[in-house]
Amino acid sequence: MNDISMRINADDLIRSALKEDVTSEDITTNAVIKEYTLGEVYLMCKQDGIVAGLDVFARAFTILDDKTEIEFFCKDGDKVVNGQKLAVVKGDVRVLLSGERTALNYLQRMSGIATYTNFIVQLLKGSKTKLLDTRKTTPNMRIFEKYAVKVGGGNNHRYNLSDGILLKDNHIGAAGGVAKAIKLAKEYAPFVRKVEVEVENLDMLKEALDAGADIIMLDNMSVEDMKKAVQMASGKAELECSGNVTAENVARLVEIGVDYISSGALTHSSPILDLSLKNLHTL
Amino acid sequence: MNDISMRINADDLIRSALKEDVTSEDITTNAVIKEYTLGEVYLMCKQDGIVAGLDVFARAFTILDDKTEIEFFCKDGDKVVNGQKLAVVKGDVRVLLSGERTALNYLQRMSGIATYTNFIVQLLKGSKTKLLDTRKTTPNMRIFEKYAVKVGGGNNHRYNLSDGILLKDNHIGAAGGVAKAIKLAKEYAPFVRKVEVEVENLDMLKEALDAGADIIMLDNMSVEDMKKAVQMASGKAELECSGNVTAENVARLVEIGVDYISSGALTHSSPILDLSLKNLHTL
Amino acid sequence: MNDISMRINADDLIRSALKEDVTSEDITTNAVIKEYTLGEVYLMCKQDGIVAGLDVFARAFTILDDKTEIEFFCKDGDKVVNGQKLAVVKGDVRVLLSGERTALNYLQRMSGIATYTNFIVQLLKGSKTKLLDTRKTTPNMRIFEKYAVKVGGGNNHRYNLSDGILLKDNHIGAAGGVAKAIKLAKEYAPFVRKVEVEVENLDMLKEALDAGADIIMLDNMSVEDMKKAVQMASGKAELECSGNVTAENVARLVEIGVDYISSGALTHSSPILDLSLKNLHTL
Amino acid sequence: MNDISMRINADDLIRSALKEDVTSEDITTNAVIKEYTLGEVYLMCKQDGIVAGLDVFARAFTILDDKTEIEFFCKDGDKVVNGQKLAVVKGDVRVLLSGERTALNYLQRMSGIATYTNFIVQLLKGSKTKLLDTRKTTPNMRIFEKYAVKVGGGNNHRYNLSDGILLKDNHIGAAGGVAKAIKLAKEYAPFVRKVEVEVENLDMLKEALDAGADIIMLDNMSVEDMKKAVQMASGKAELECSGNVTAENVARLVEIGVDYISSGALTHSSPILDLSLKNLHTL
Amino acid sequence: MNDISMRINADDLIRSALKEDVTSEDITTNAVIKEYTLGEVYLMCKQDGIVAGLDVFARAFTILDDKTEIEFFCKDGDKVVNGQKLAVVKGDVRVLLSGERTALNYLQRMSGIATYTNFIVQLLKGSKTKLLDTRKTTPNMRIFEKYAVKVGGGNNHRYNLSDGILLKDNHIGAAGGVAKAIKLAKEYAPFVRKVEVEVENLDMLKEALDAGADIIMLDNMSVEDMKKAVQMASGKAELECSGNVTAENVARLVEIGVDYISSGALTHSSPILDLSLKNLHTL
Amino acid sequence: MNDISMRINADDLIRSALKEDVTSEDITTNAVIKEYTLGEVYLMCKQDGIVAGLDVFARAFTILDDKTEIEFFCKDGDKVVNGQKLAVVKGDVRVLLSGERTALNYLQRMSGIATYTNFIVQLLKGSKTKLLDTRKTTPNMRIFEKYAVKVGGGNNHRYNLSDGILLKDNHIGAAGGVAKAIKLAKEYAPFVRKVEVEVENLDMLKEALDAGADIIMLDNMSVEDMKKAVQMASGKAELECSGNVTAENVARLVEIGVDYISSGALTHSSPILDLSLKNLHTL
Repeated sequence: MNDISMRINADDLIRSALKEDVTSEDITTNAVIKEYTLGEVYLMCKQDGIVAGLDVFARAFTILDDKTEIEFFCKDGDKVVNGQKLAVVKGDVRVLLSGERTALNYLQRMSGIATYTNFIVQLLKGSKTKLLDTRKTTPNMRIFEKYAVKVGGGNNHRYNLSDGILLKDNHIGAAGGVAKAIKLAKEYAPFVRKVEVEVENLDMLKEALDAGADIIMLDNMSVEDMKKAVQMASGKAELECSGNVTAENVARLVEIGVDYISSGALTHSSPILDLSLKNLHTL
Repeated sequence: MNDISMRINADDLIRSALKEDVTSEDITTNAVIKEYTLGEVYLMCKQDGIVAGLDVFARAFTILDDKTEIEFFCKDGDKVVNGQKLAVVKGDVRVLLSGERTALNYLQRMSGIATYTNFIVQLLKGSKTKLLDTRKTTPNMRIFEKYAVKVGGGNNHRYNLSDGILLKDNHIGAAGGVAKAIKLAKEYAPFVRKVEVEVENLDMLKEALDAGADIIMLDNMSVEDMKKAVQMASGKAELECSGNVTAENVARLVEIGVDYISSGALTHSSPILDLSLKNLHTL
Repeated sequence: MNDISMRINADDLIRSALKEDVTSEDITTNAVIKEYTLGEVYLMCKQDGIVAGLDVFARAFTILDDKTEIEFFCKDGDKVVNGQKLAVVKGDVRVLLSGERTALNYLQRMSGIATYTNFIVQLLKGSKTKLLDTRKTTPNMRIFEKYAVKVGGGNNHRYNLSDGILLKDNHIGAAGGVAKAIKLAKEYAPFVRKVEVEVENLDMLKEALDAGADIIMLDNMSVEDMKKAVQMASGKAELECSGNVTAENVARLVEIGVDYISSGALTHSSPILDLSLKNLHTL
Repeated sequence: MNDISMRINADDLIRSALKEDVTSEDITTNAVIKEYTLGEVYLMCKQDGIVAGLDVFARAFTILDDKTEIEFFCKDGDKVVNGQKLAVVKGDVRVLLSGERTALNYLQRMSGIATYTNFIVQLLKGSKTKLLDTRKTTPNMRIFEKYAVKVGGGNNHRYNLSDGILLKDNHIGAAGGVAKAIKLAKEYAPFVRKVEVEVENLDMLKEALDAGADIIMLDNMSVEDMKKAVQMASGKAELECSGNVTAENVARLVEIGVDYISSGALTHSSPILDLSLKNLHTL
Repeated sequence: MNDISMRINADDLIRSALKEDVTSEDITTNAVIKEYTLGEVYLMCKQDGIVAGLDVFARAFTILDDKTEIEFFCKDGDKVVNGQKLAVVKGDVRVLLSGERTALNYLQRMSGIATYTNFIVQLLKGSKTKLLDTRKTTPNMRIFEKYAVKVGGGNNHRYNLSDGILLKDNHIGAAGGVAKAIKLAKEYAPFVRKVEVEVENLDMLKEALDAGADIIMLDNMSVEDMKKAVQMASGKAELECSGNVTAENVARLVEIGVDYISSGALTHSSPILDLSLKNLHTL
Repeated sequence: MNDISMRINADDLIRSALKEDVTSEDITTNAVIKEYTLGEVYLMCKQDGIVAGLDVFARAFTILDDKTEIEFFCKDGDKVVNGQKLAVVKGDVRVLLSGERTALNYLQRMSGIATYTNFIVQLLKGSKTKLLDTRKTTPNMRIFEKYAVKVGGGNNHRYNLSDGILLKDNHIGAAGGVAKAIKLAKEYAPFVRKVEVEVENLDMLKEALDAGADIIMLDNMSVEDMKKAVQMASGKAELECSGNVTAENVARLVEIGVDYISSGALTHSSPILDLSLKNLHTL
């Protein structure tokens, strides 16, 4: 995440998360550490994976005290291994203790998503098929989770309902057919938008191609039909296959030859990457 | 969650999540549905589990339009099964479409946590040991995730750094020992607080018991030592065992006889429960 | 604006505008009207034009008191004429007086934009060229001003820096050329994004077309070159002509045959449409 | 605007405007400029006028990155001419690109208001009549627009409904007459407030003077009556003439000899002053 | 407070106060009352005084649940006596319990201020001298405390630094004298402002009168000098005497004949009025 | 208050208080001081007492301008005397003038609470009875007022409804008795919570002790009964006596031997400590 996104989009959310954890004060820390005490602590990796969110991790501490210094020994997207020291955080010991959980909650989740995304991306290697995320993100975490997908080597689908058109069955029904829905979308939407439409069979696919859809999502089609779809769409529109992507079935999806496969699990069900702060000591 | 928590604590977060998904407008829906159209859609369960967060699900729609009506056929904590119809949401079709993802993102995550929590709770059945969550929650989701743990049959540890004392190794080090740390905590903290302290061996345990700790967390002790700890602490303090709780090792933890085991995985690594909105139709 | 956008995106801004005008209380009104008094007032048109923003006008009153009733005799996009009664606002006289200025400040500006946009759109009638707005909007007014452009018959360019790609000279310079910039954009951006690039001459245009740009903005080209550009781009990309669009030069732009012309003046320099509240009386 | 107003009153609005333009990230810039790159860009004047809002312009960049340096070659209120270099902005190229539009949207609008205000002020030169603004400002822009009026040589009428009393026809009607309305206002309002009242004829004027009004607004009176009003009010109250002030009719208003004339057009219909950022280059 | 001020200015503060008292949930109430239970409770007066803030009291409950019904048996400004039943609050028992403290914290403080203000106002009865408050209010309570002063029969001085001019010794020093300061203020400030200036002796008073000050505050003058000041200022400016107003010294101040005396104690040191909720019972 | 609480919990409230006092600008200061002017001013004590809130005082100035320097000659909790110089504030004179009132409003109130609390604490000296505050704080001031109580030598009861259990008569009634209420609380509430219950007679006390209450509040009991209660509870639970604590009756409460007495007056009715800024001069 570049500094601008951190300032404009992420800061308020990180501050809100810190308030969630400190509604009045850190009573444990304040009970035993009565005044400013300089110290440092190490960010240790306890599981192999891909790290993502180091700036967010750092920001949790610098929001508490902008004099806190964080030195990183890795960068977002790096492979990290169990036992590796990833960073040193140096500053007021009370800041290190009070910011620890929020900083780790962000970093572990983002790194977990990057790690799992990268695992699937590796399975797609060599094919032309790319991996997409969805809008199935954790509430108030979208900016962090979509970024983590990108760090892991995935691609972002639309961010939200305002910046991408995706005509699903209900929209098509309301419009009175695929072609009519596409026409309405082209008339209504800002001209910079591509039009994506979800189809369930080859007839709908043909209608969508004829109506000028830019992207077509294949919903619950048989492998045979999807292969025909790839031939029909060739050069006219991009194809997205949405469904339950798993390590087991990715190989099958790849050979179909669609442009994209999308997976909600990247953001809604990745386990975290285990990380912790260790060896806090005064300086 | 009772209505007061929804109004005072949850509403702002739900509204923020809706804004994350609608930064200006739902361009797809607005392109094809030009005006108010009454319709309804069903909330369907696609996986067995425990449902949690129905009020939050409903609120995502009523914030968009308070005339939206949601009828539930189940309540938080109920066992639900694949194929079961859980609710009908009735209102402006545009509200149903624009609120769908945010409503489901909350409900799927909360139900996933309740389901996984309940799975572990069942393994503890018959023992005196209770299951606790931690502060390893997703940022800006704590109120929802802690509630889901409770719905699943788990217990909440402290909410945040302001409402519970937990003296860890760093605090003990800063204070100059277990007894001194406990003394400082009792002097400093609001008198309504219990004092919990983390110990690594039986000597520290003894010191903590003598100093009047209310709760003692056993950190990385051998099973043998933990069994001795249970005898030593009997009637004097409650014991919490923190660690990597898994389906496999729970049985072993139970027989030790500690009062509580805590698990970060409940909130940071539960997979979601699969739910969806189906069969949207106008009325 | 549909109700969802009003709730999620507009309400906070309207409330902020009301606070700007009432930092503690309306001292004039409260001095003379000590208690609830039912009354009504008419929204009168004092100048011919296109009305836009009626829902925003109404919301300024219903935020102050949700029991205020507004009956409209026209709808957004309608032609209205000097002397026409557009609406009746009925409620507590203190609400009518305290909300008046904020309600009118929105409605007059939005209607002014719709009116001016429509004036230019009429000049384009019969051609294939469409009118676009820009990001030259008044701060904190974008959602209202972009909507007004649409009501006036214009089209919206991208909403903001997050939902559209537009490679300008600086981006091209930083990337090391048109083709490289387009390549970087395609790799980086969410796949649902079209790629627009700004070019200054026909060589750059060719490079952009070859690299697969979706939209090309012609910057400061001669009419001759623009006509050649239309031929070159035909069927491969859409063309946007950006510049000082005026009533006088529109005819010239039209005959070039570009797909779009964009104009910042629609949102930054439209005069307001004169409207007022008249004949307040108690009931 | 002094620094305190910037911090306390302007910052939140500028930040909100930046978020309006960057809902997640500047995808174009981030696609081509992957890391911190020092550069600078010039603020160029493209039209003669009066500049206003330089601090606001600067703040849009320093909110994004407080290390951005802005050197000005002019100050608010200065006459600027087409082709003049007004400032250099130096910092991360990504900040220069992402903040450009918001910074210019403020500066162009504020400078446009200062320029138009100054144009009218020049026409009043030599007379005792002063120019006032109104509450007809753009929503959420009042602090910026009222400041620009002052920079242009105009005077501010009341800021809002809370800090000035202005008894209009509806208040007078509700109170039961001019004298009664003034009496109620004097009793109710904070004692530091002057009482202004709007009158339609000389009888009302006399009643207002007798009741001790501090300021009297002449509404729709003939030139003859206004001249009589000036004689009647002499030394007892200040007179304000409100109406459609134009370049053409200002001369007529001046000779009447009122103390103030107020004009809504200063803030609601001034065209912008054309300014732009040019020649961005790395350092 | 009228409904508009409640909605626009008070609601956010009341909501913030409720969040201060309910950071996640009312654990005591939720432990014992598991579901909606209709009940009512009485607002009882336990000390004689003047009641102020009933709408704020009610709003604390209706923000939690807008179906809560509050019936009042008195109105703001009424004398109330120990043992008097002031209101019945009817609704969900959980709302009554969770909102109780916030509602009472507002009402007790506002009523305490009204009561003490009224006590001083009674001592001024029969004289022409009026009682003023100051800006010495509790942070984030100004709107409530200034209102309570008015309910108690006092008058409001300026609300804040933006809506009133008060030239104190430091401003006079910076300007280079009383006359210069007044001149600068008249040039700078919105024309609706009166100019108040603080003087320490009769020479400064004369200078202020000559320069056209509207209000003059007498600072630390002897009774003799203040009496002379009253004669000098007669008909030219209003006089305010600021200082330690106590029940004992008010009589002395009154006979001097100044127009106003101001007292910070009204808002910073009034004791609360004792009120409580009693006899909660289900219905 | 440590720096973390200041950043996370206090800053928003202080900023809101500053906005309350500066809704657009400090017109008096801006009229006479046109540009940055370095100066300093002294914080003087005008009454003997205990000072509390120095960091909050400083923050009011540094929020306006982070280059303002504050040097303190005392620290929170110190005894201060009339005439003592407590601090020097050095910076832009406009910042010193615009921040003065908000800074003092916080410091005077917090120091007043610390002073009064300390006065009562001194009366308890030598006994085992400790002094507690309550939730009867000024809305939006709790974090500041609870801190001031601690500075004065008092102890904090629970912060709010979310972090402490206190079963009052209504909860007991709803639960169906003391024992049942305690049982419900233990089942429901986070395990880190102590359970406090309010009892009215010795029978209820016995029931509470048997049910395992951690703290018992004695409500309106006779001195005789309270003495018996102390004997009954000895070693089993802590006792809190709540009531109208006054300088006169404290001696009587002490000899009863309860562990705690709580007093709402500490936060709701302490008079302020008189402090002021003096001798502002330029440098």
